[in-house]
Amino acid sequence: MTYTNAKTIYDKVGAEAVLTEQSDLRQYLTGFGSTFGYVLSDKNGSVFYTDRRYIEGATAALEGSDIAVKIFEGTIEKLLKPYKQVAVPLSRTYYNDWKRLADTGIKICDSEPAFIEAMSIKQPYELASIKKACEITDKAFECLLSKIREGMTENELAAELEYLMRSFGASGTSFPTIVGFGENSSVPHHETGLRKLKFGDIILIDYGCKVGGYCSDCTRTFLFGDDKKHQRFKTAYAHVLKAHMLVKERLTDGMTGRQADAIARDYLKANELDKFFSHSLGHGIGVNIHEFPRLSTKSEDVLRNNMVFSDEPGVYFEGDFGIRIEDTVTLIDGKAVSLTDSDKNLIIL
Amino acid sequence: MTYTNAKTIYDKVGAEAVLTEQSDLRQYLTGFGSTFGYVLSDKNGSVFYTDRRYIEGATAALEGSDIAVKIFEGTIEKLLKPYKQVAVPLSRTYYNDWKRLADTGIKICDSEPAFIEAMSIKQPYELASIKKACEITDKAFECLLSKIREGMTENELAAELEYLMRSFGASGTSFPTIVGFGENSSVPHHETGLRKLKFGDIILIDYGCKVGGYCSDCTRTFLFGDDKKHQRFKTAYAHVLKAHMLVKERLTDGMTGRQADAIARDYLKANELDKFFSHSLGHGIGVNIHEFPRLSTKSEDVLRNNMVFSDEPGVYFEGDFGIRIEDTVTLIDGKAVSLTDSDKNLIIL
Repeated sequence: MTYTNAKTIYDKVGAEAVLTEQSDLRQYLTGFGSTFGYVLSDKNGSVFYTDRRYIEGATAALEGSDIAVKIFEGTIEKLLKPYKQVAVPLSRTYYNDWKRLADTGIKICDSEPAFIEAMSIKQPYELASIKKACEITDKAFECLLSKIREGMTENELAAELEYLMRSFGASGTSFPTIVGFGENSSVPHHETGLRKLKFGDIILIDYGCKVGGYCSDCTRTFLFGDDKKHQRFKTAYAHVLKAHMLVKERLTDGMTGRQADAIARDYLKANELDKFFSHSLGHGIGVNIHEFPRLSTKSEDVLRNNMVFSDEPGVYFEGDFGIRIEDTVTLIDGKAVSLTDSDKNLIIL
Repeated sequence: MTYTNAKTIYDKVGAEAVLTEQSDLRQYLTGFGSTFGYVLSDKNGSVFYTDRRYIEGATAALEGSDIAVKIFEGTIEKLLKPYKQVAVPLSRTYYNDWKRLADTGIKICDSEPAFIEAMSIKQPYELASIKKACEITDKAFECLLSKIREGMTENELAAELEYLMRSFGASGTSFPTIVGFGENSSVPHHETGLRKLKFGDIILIDYGCKVGGYCSDCTRTFLFGDDKKHQRFKTAYAHVLKAHMLVKERLTDGMTGRQADAIARDYLKANELDKFFSHSLGHGIGVNIHEFPRLSTKSEDVLRNNMVFSDEPGVYFEGDFGIRIEDTVTLIDGKAVSLTDSDKNLIIL
C-alpha cells in the first residue's frame, strides 16, 4: 500500500478527524485533480468522497494507496457524526461552512498550519512535476522566439506560448498568460489584449504551465528589434538582471523572505531603482501559483531546502516601459538553483 | 458619471457599508479583473482599493465611473473604523476573515443574496461579452475540425483549440479544456492527456473561453472516422441530442431548475438511458463558469429571462464511451436561445 499525503497531514494535525474540501489541498492529499469532493481522515485511514464525474478516474488513480474512494451521499453532518473533534483549514473555510460544523456541536480546530508546513517542503515526486513544468516553460520560450512577427497581437503571442506548452505535455497554464508590448510592459499585471507588435517594442511575457497538478512561473523581458532609443531600458535591464542573479548567489537555507527580498531591493536602491520596484521579490510555488513562503519586505517566513519559489525583481516606469526577470527557483543543499533557466541575457530579436 | 454594479449592489444590500474582496465579485462590481483588492461602498459612493500592480490599469478602466481607485494601505480594521455595520458575502468569506471583522465589534450582515440575484440576470453589456465568447467558441470548433489528425494527443488537440480561441480574441479559457478520445470520453471530467487519436475514435471536447471577464461553455462529441462499430453510440447520440433539443424547446421563464432537468431526464428515462446520465443538466454561467442557477434534480432555483446557463445532458458507459452535448443558453422573452450554436448533428470526420 502506498501512503499518501493524507496520512502525513493526519499525523501532523493530531485531531480525531481531518476534513478537507479545498480543491488545491485535495489535490495535495490525493495527487488527483477534481472540482468537488472531501477527504476525511481518521485513525482508520482516509476516504476521498466525490461525485460520479470523478469516481472512475479517482478509483483508478488511488488504487493501491491508503485512500479509499466513495461517492459522496448524504451530508457533511452525517459524515462527521462519529467524531467529537474535526480539523479544517480555518483561513480557507468559508464562514457558512464553519457555522454548519459549529452548529453540530463538534469541536473545530485548524489543519492549516500542518498543510502550510508540509506543502512548502517539496517531496521528490512534487519536485519532479515542477521540474517537468519548468522544462516545458523553457522549451516553449525557445520555440516562441522564431514565431514572433511584426503586427501580431499580445493575444496571438499568448496563444502561441500556451499552444507550445500544451503540446509539449502541460495540462494547462498556471495562470492567464501576461503579454505586454511596448508601454504595456509598465503595468505589472497587464491584461493581455489587442496591442500590435511594432519594431523596437519591448516584449514582457509572464507565463507558466501545470504538470501533474504542479505549477511553473517565469517572466522574460526582451526587445523586438533595436530602434536605438533604448539606452535607459538597457541600463535598467542590466540592473534588474544583476538583482535577480544576486538573489540566487546569496540566498541560503534559513534566511527569511524579508532578507531575500532585501538582496534585490538593496542592490536596486544603490542604483536608484528601488522606487520603481513596486512589488515583492517572490512567492512560493506548488499546486498553487501563490503559496507559502512569501519573499517580501515584511515576510518572516523562513526559506528552507526543497522549497520552491519565484525570484522576480522588476522595475516599472508608468506609461513608458517595465522590466521583470523571473525564474522558478528551489533551494538544494542551502543553495538556490533555477528550475526555469532560459536565456536571461538581453535578447534583441 | 457612469454608475457601476457597485451602486446596484449597495442599494440592494441596504447595509451601512458593503465590503467585497472576492475576485469574481470584484470583477462584477468594477468590470476590471484583478487578483487583489477590496471594493468598499457606502452612502457617499464606492472605492476600489488595490495594490501598485493594478493601480494604473484600474484607474484607466474606471475613469468617469462612480468608483474611485486608491492604493490599499493600512488594514481592513482601519478601513471599516467609520462604520457600525458592514455586509460581506458570508458563504464566500473565510472564517478567519469573518473572525477579524467580528473581533472589531462591527455588526456583520450578508451581501451574498444581493450578488446572486443581481449577477444571475445578465445586463446587455454582460450578454454582449458572453455572446462574443460564444462566437469565438463556435469559430474555434469549426477551425479545429480541419486540424484533427490521426496520432495527435488529447493535449495537442486541446492546445489547438485554446490557441484558436486565444487568437480570435479570448483572454483565456473558462476552465482547463477537456479532451477525451475513445474510452476516455466515458469519464465526465476526464483529465486531458497523452492518449493518441486512432481511426474510429469518439472525440469529446468540453471547452470555453473568456471575453471581458465572462465565460462560455460548450461540449461536442463526434467521430474520427466511422469504423462501423458504432451502432450503440449512434443510437445513444441521437437520444442525447433529442434530450438537449427538448430542453430548449420546452424551457420557459418561471420554470425551476428541477423542472428543466426533468425535461432531459424524463426523455432519457423513456429510452432507458437515465441511469447513464450521471450529472445534472446544467449550471449558471457568468464571470464564473459555475454560478446560480443550478439545473438539477433537486434545484428549486427559478429560471428567468436574461439568465445564462448550460444545457448539457450526457450519458457515460464506463470504460467504453461517453456522450455529452452542451450549449450555453439564455432565456429571451420566455424562450431558450443557444449562444453557442455550432453543428450538433453527428459529425463523422
